[in-house]
Amino acid sequence: MDLNADLGEGFGRWTLTEDEALLTCVTSANVACGFHAGDASVMRRVCDAAAARGVRIGAQVSYRDLAGFGRRAMDVPAAELTAETAYQIGALRVFAEAAGSTVSYVKPHGALYNRTVHDEEQAAAVVAGVLLAGGRPAVLGLPGSLLLDHARAAGLTAVEEAFADRAYTPRGTLVPRGEEGAVVHDADEVVRRSVGMAVARTVVSADGSRIPVGARSLCVHGDTPGAAALARRVRSALEDAGVTVRAFT
Amino acid sequence: MDLNADLGEGFGRWTLTEDEALLTCVTSANVACGFHAGDASVMRRVCDAAAARGVRIGAQVSYRDLAGFGRRAMDVPAAELTAETAYQIGALRVFAEAAGSTVSYVKPHGALYNRTVHDEEQAAAVVAGVLLAGGRPAVLGLPGSLLLDHARAAGLTAVEEAFADRAYTPRGTLVPRGEEGAVVHDADEVVRRSVGMAVARTVVSADGSRIPVGARSLCVHGDTPGAAALARRVRSALEDAGVTVRAFT
Amino acid sequence: MDLNADLGEGFGRWTLTEDEALLTCVTSANVACGFHAGDASVMRRVCDAAAARGVRIGAQVSYRDLAGFGRRAMDVPAAELTAETAYQIGALRVFAEAAGSTVSYVKPHGALYNRTVHDEEQAAAVVAGVLLAGGRPAVLGLPGSLLLDHARAAGLTAVEEAFADRAYTPRGTLVPRGEEGAVVHDADEVVRRSVGMAVARTVVSADGSRIPVGARSLCVHGDTPGAAALARRVRSALEDAGVTVRAFT
Amino acid sequence: MDLNADLGEGFGRWTLTEDEALLTCVTSANVACGFHAGDASVMRRVCDAAAARGVRIGAQVSYRDLAGFGRRAMDVPAAELTAETAYQIGALRVFAEAAGSTVSYVKPHGALYNRTVHDEEQAAAVVAGVLLAGGRPAVLGLPGSLLLDHARAAGLTAVEEAFADRAYTPRGTLVPRGEEGAVVHDADEVVRRSVGMAVARTVVSADGSRIPVGARSLCVHGDTPGAAALARRVRSALEDAGVTVRAFT
Repeated sequence: MDLNADLGEGFGRWTLTEDEALLTCVTSANVACGFHAGDASVMRRVCDAAAARGVRIGAQVSYRDLAGFGRRAMDVPAAELTAETAYQIGALRVFAEAAGSTVSYVKPHGALYNRTVHDEEQAAAVVAGVLLAGGRPAVLGLPGSLLLDHARAAGLTAVEEAFADRAYTPRGTLVPRGEEGAVVHDADEVVRRSVGMAVARTVVSADGSRIPVGARSLCVHGDTPGAAALARRVRSALEDAGVTVRAFT
Repeated sequence: MDLNADLGEGFGRWTLTEDEALLTCVTSANVACGFHAGDASVMRRVCDAAAARGVRIGAQVSYRDLAGFGRRAMDVPAAELTAETAYQIGALRVFAEAAGSTVSYVKPHGALYNRTVHDEEQAAAVVAGVLLAGGRPAVLGLPGSLLLDHARAAGLTAVEEAFADRAYTPRGTLVPRGEEGAVVHDADEVVRRSVGMAVARTVVSADGSRIPVGARSLCVHGDTPGAAALARRVRSALEDAGVTVRAFT
Repeated sequence: MDLNADLGEGFGRWTLTEDEALLTCVTSANVACGFHAGDASVMRRVCDAAAARGVRIGAQVSYRDLAGFGRRAMDVPAAELTAETAYQIGALRVFAEAAGSTVSYVKPHGALYNRTVHDEEQAAAVVAGVLLAGGRPAVLGLPGSLLLDHARAAGLTAVEEAFADRAYTPRGTLVPRGEEGAVVHDADEVVRRSVGMAVARTVVSADGSRIPVGARSLCVHGDTPGAAALARRVRSALEDAGVTVRAFT
Repeated sequence: MDLNADLGEGFGRWTLTEDEALLTCVTSANVACGFHAGDASVMRRVCDAAAARGVRIGAQVSYRDLAGFGRRAMDVPAAELTAETAYQIGALRVFAEAAGSTVSYVKPHGALYNRTVHDEEQAAAVVAGVLLAGGRPAVLGLPGSLLLDHARAAGLTAVEEAFADRAYTPRGTLVPRGEEGAVVHDADEVVRRSVGMAVARTVVSADGSRIPVGARSLCVHGDTPGAAALARRVRSALEDAGVTVRAFT
């Protein structure tokens, strides 16, 4: 099982994610590329630290929206979105390669992540941007998303991820944020679900039924207080349960 | 002799440089990378057009200052400037390579160009960014600048440029903008000086004396009305005088 | 009849609207406030020129999106949109008042204009921002829009506008951009329709039927080549037809 | 004695200053206006909270530099700097007035603060922006600065401030950051010096000599961990020493 988290989400004077601490437990780092967070200095520092620890580097591409942290859906025309996606990957690649690594995968951030689950045009546009950027990185996303469909159709590796701290509907989709119980706040419960998703490859859904989870990567959040401590507990519990925690291939 | 001009200096809804027309006459395109001008869509379009015409692509790196068009000198700490330089080169490289070309050289823009003539720290920081970005592109700049000194010391190709429409002091430096006669406005005179710099490798300085000019590239301006028409005249005159106009190697 | 146009849509080095020429013929200037266009220097210059000519100043508020020129719809939460609306009005008011005028009205720009026609939350949020900014400016918008409904409900003056160069459906709504014939390109036709809307208060819709138009303001476009010349023709034709062209009250 | 601190220095998803806690102890809030920090939502929230507690609101104007947090000196032409200063004051005034307060004073931030100590053109440009914005707010700055000279010459109230945690040279200027001992880190010492500056109106300079301090306002830092706790200790100590802590008039 791969463990991924958002990193490098500071900007200028501001910090957000506990980058150093998270890099001791995750295997894939979704690095912000400057459009919702992450200036050039932050990107360089995170890439250096990730490469030094053997953590895989991914481009966390976003709408161009620093003020909204990429959380506000935008009707960006396809051609612009394709170019913006490629721009971000290219900028990050410089720092990944300077650190002796590379951009192994791409994961959309925030509102772009949610939009490309169901928006045909934007899903296709992001994948076109990934192709344009070259190097054929994998695409990390939600099982069943149009983003992953388009990635597969383009011959890219599509990697499905599960969420350690999110509730699932009986059909296997995420309970929308804002609904009661959408986020699992109890740390023990987060750890228990993580192990279940990795070992039994199931999780208990919102109605109590047990549903299958086929994800090859598990997303832990990086931008909440105590995020790194929780990620470390998840990793330890996975390893104690005999799960090999390593980057997807 | 190489002919270079600034291109891709639009942003979003705004246009500035006559990109298509300039690409029919220059041999090197200094493409804006998003920090003073040039969004991802513009960068892609210009790289595609330049590659299609066999025009060499260079990264016109800048301070991060859209509102000031990169013309306001900034005290950017060295580490930030290095990272920002690499970021811009990486972003542009994606579009250059997608078009089947590459980023062959780097030329600082505006206030950063002027600052790195004499500012040791910033000159070194920009060159460090060029190295960090990899690929060992050439560096294009003012003869005698610290930027070119640092580029040479780093083992990079340092290319000196002359200006078709700027007055020179008897010592061979540019007459500062703002001083009387700093810019040559007469088109015939610009063409005549260009040919002189390319063939006799001299130019008449502000006091009337003839001084040597060793530049391998001639900069024509792209952001003024009629810029493309003037560039075409310069190129024709050079060719009529038997000068081979092609990108520096 | 009032004539309004978008002005001050340059930014830094870039210009777009022919501000000086437009100010000789319109009676209301929709001044960009820095979120889609218009830096502080442009805003100051346009306010000074508008006040000197007795042209009324309005705040053309927008999503925060320079790269997209405010033309990309954004899911901005209501509280943020309210604050951003007030911020823009406040910034513009400084320049309007320094010029001896004031911000008489507010008109949303681009995607925000279109969104607040039918989006209850965003329409309410913009009006809340107008109220927050104080001074009780009028609100200029599309007849039948939720924006104007909310403005009226808040006790603000709601001013309906018609478009000189846009086609109308038989029901009186605009033919969506992108559809065949959405924009009237023939200048004579634009002038003829303008006079018709001002005098007979009707216009011929897309199916040839004549429909009523009750607008108190007529919008002429400012960001296309020849915009000022066309605006001048419209104004002359209105005056020749006996229409008093002056700002709404 | 007035106590001032920088507030509202978050942006979008990022927070920095402990705004609520600081507002319980300072008497003047230097509120960021969006150019180095502080989006419209943050500005509104801080103004509401400040007004509710009777804390005076000031505009902390800055260079336009989010990525550098306004800490990178910029060669902004005078006319642009004047317009940008007025823009920021106007934007903040909307929120101050909506909260029933006003913008009582202006204090430049970061690199602009330092630059306007000795740069004639920029000092004059900022004061021109303050005048342009209207309302004749006071100007808060360093004793002996050109900024305060220009403010006085313009008939504005010039308020000198001292720094609770900065070392002074024997001549009464600040020991430059970066030099040994420039910042006083010991909390007890900060408190002791604050009381001395308020009561005896002297402070011990870097060479051990006691020098006069005539400041009417004392600046405590808001952007460091524990800033609010230290500010509270300073205030308590001042009050215990019989100093009336209230906003300057």
